Formats: sequence, C-alpha cells, structure tokens
Amino acid sequence: MTITITAFERSPDRGKGLARDMRVRWALEEVGQPYEVRLLSFKAMKEPAHLALQPFGQIPTYEEGDLALFESGAVVLHIAQRHAGLLPDDADARARAITWMFAAVSTMEPTIVDREIVRYLEGDKPWYEERLSMVDDRIRRRLRDLSNRLGDAEWLDGAFSAGDLEMVSALLRARGSGILDEYPNLAAYVARGEARPAYKRAFDAQLAVFTAASTG
Amino acid sequence: MTITITAFERSPDRGKGLARDMRVRWALEEVGQPYEVRLLSFKAMKEPAHLALQPFGQIPTYEEGDLALFESGAVVLHIAQRHAGLLPDDADARARAITWMFAAVSTMEPTIVDREIVRYLEGDKPWYEERLSMVDDRIRRRLRDLSNRLGDAEWLDGAFSAGDLEMVSALLRARGSGILDEYPNLAAYVARGEARPAYKRAFDAQLAVFTAASTG
Repeated sequence: MTITITAFERSPDRGKGLARDMRVRWALEEVGQPYEVRLLSFKAMKEPAHLALQPFGQIPTYEEGDLALFESGAVVLHIAQRHAGLLPDDADARARAITWMFAAVSTMEPTIVDREIVRYLEGDKPWYEERLSMVDDRIRRRLRDLSNRLGDAEWLDGAFSAGDLEMVSALLRARGSGILDEYPNLAAYVARGEARPAYKRAFDAQLAVFTAASTG
Repeated sequence: MTITITAFERSPDRGKGLARDMRVRWALEEVGQPYEVRLLSFKAMKEPAHLALQPFGQIPTYEEGDLALFESGAVVLHIAQRHAGLLPDDADARARAITWMFAAVSTMEPTIVDREIVRYLEGDKPWYEERLSMVDDRIRRRLRDLSNRLGDAEWLDGAFSAGDLEMVSALLRARGSGILDEYPNLAAYVARGEARPAYKRAFDAQLAVFTAASTG
C-alpha cells in the first residue's frame, strides 16, 4: 500500500530540515519504505479536508490505505513497530527506546521550541532579551542533563533507535542558537545522526521541495 | 514481578492529581495491576541514585524487575501494550490511540504547562498580564481545535483508550484557569474521565500521600 505524507509547500525553515515531516521521511528512509508527499499551503492546512486528517491544522500526516495518523512521534513509532531497523528486538530495550522518543517530544522539544516562539511572538516586546535569557537557561538545564546521561556513548541506549531519531531531531532545533555547541558530546551526537545515509536522503528530499517552490 | 513507581513526597499541586505519577497510577488501575510507590523529596530527585533512573530529575519512574523506564507517556504506553484495557485490539485503531497519546503530551500539554511556567517564573514581571494573555490565546486555539474534533463523541476515537487517559490528564491542568470551561464538550469529556472508577482510585491514592505528608 502506498504511504502518503503531508509537508509544507514552502517550509518556514527554508529547507533546513527542521519541519516535522523530516522525521517521518528519515524514519521511512531508515526502514527502506518508499513514500509519496502531498504538499500543503498554509491556507490548505487550515481547511476542512486537512483538519479531518490533522485536527490542529499541522503537518505531517500519514496515510496508508484506510489508516490515517498524525503527530510525527506517533507516525515514527508506527513505522518503527511495523518495519525492522528502528527498535531493538528485546522487549525491555524496545520500551526504553520508546521512553527516549517521549523524552524527546515532551521533555526536550517543547523547551527548545519555546525559544522559537519567543523570537517569533515576542521579538518586538520590551522584555524580549530578558525572556530569551530565561528560556535559554531552561534549555541549558535540559541539555546539561542529557549530556550527562549520554556521556561518551554513541547513541542513547545501545544501537541507533527511533529514540535517537526523535532526540537528534529535537536537538537540531537548538543548534541555530549556538547553545547546542556548548555541549560537545551532544553536538557530536547530532552530527552522527546527520551523517546517517537515511538522514541525508530525507534531508535532500525536503530541501528539493523548498528549492522547487522558491525557483518555480 | 512488583511494579514500583516514584512520586513526590509532597506534591506541588497539594494532591490535586496533576503530578505525572497520577497518569501511571490511573493506567495501572485501569488494567488492574498492583504497584508500590517510592516517595522522593525534591532534594532526592536531583541526586545520582534518581538521576540514574530519570536523567532530568523528575517523577515518575517505573521499575519492574530489570526494566526501568521514565516519561509518563512511555510508561502508560508500556502498561497499555502489556495489559488489556487501554488500547484497542485492531492494529489501525491502536495506532490512532497512540496518535492521541502523542497529541496530548507533545501538542496539547506543553501549551497548557506554559501557563504554569508564566505564573511561576514571570508572576513578578511587568509583562506578566500581557504574557498570560498571549499564552491563554494559544491554549484557546488548541482547545478549540480539539473541541471541534471531539464534537459530541464520548471519547476521542471509539472506546476509552490510553489516548483519552493522556488527553484528559493534560486538559485537567487547564481547568484551574477557567479556560477549559469555555469549551463545554471538553469539560464534560474531562468529567467523564474523572468519573471512571480507576481514576478515582488513583486520585485517592495520590491524595493520601499528600495528606499524610501534611499532617505527619
């Protein structure tokens, strides 16, 4: 059955791979599953046809036959549970990998995304600098804790898993601020993620969409 | 094998059931699994013994024999996958229920928790009222979208699932603000969650911990 995902027609990150379709593309590349992409304008994302698939009007969605899913974390987990390559076979190790997926999307990423929200919504406010500094302190505490846990390991728990895929993706959103580089083992961890052939194929595919939209 | 979870020795919410051990207790009650609780002071949560279990120094954790997990979302999913009662049997319906779990912890809850962060960290700032109003607008957009999706259904997708358990738990954190009551179908949805016998048993158990700490 054909897998179809949705993505931004013109990604706000200008093809830097930070939009959440990137994670689904990366997961599908890791497990070797082909997929099609339906591109959406910002207007189309808020229309009834898309809201029926994604109640919050976001991307990505995932369709495969009669199944329709949203939330990139849930989609990556679905892919990881159905195809080999993103979760260990051992049941306990599998549960731990899923723990890291939740840690990425619910503990790490919201703190990092807060910084983007501050820049976007409060950039013209008199309190901007003070708020940014408060958010950066919170990001640093999370990164410090993760850095301590990772130590000099290659991945968070044994072999590369969907937990690393989600955590690398969340951390990538902190790189532009320079804060990630304050934790060299985390910066190297993210670089290892980006060096994976599946990551590169996914990255190139999403960049091609942005390039085509910009030159078309 | 004995299941042991961790919880606050003295919950900051004073036993209102908003701490994240509540979700794990609720899930265990839904599937009829007994558990033990190890209580932690705020100091103990940041010490090496606990950080080895929970790298971000939070509660709850989950231990069962050699398996140690953290992140309440991951723990609830682990419980739901191993015991009947929290996920449908049909594979597609199961994937959709897991989608709602991720929507609760990564799309709904961070927006709602932002309000608590503003009150806690920015309550004495000159910009407090303006910030609170910005955050409340974001919460309203999420609640509006969820309200539209839920309509007059009893639960988010067929029978009660771990997705509802997580969503009700996230929404409960918005009730104190009064915003939840602006969406009567969501307020009724949360009330249906609270009316479940398993919820009540879990709630009473966590409240008993706070009461004992306060009077002991």
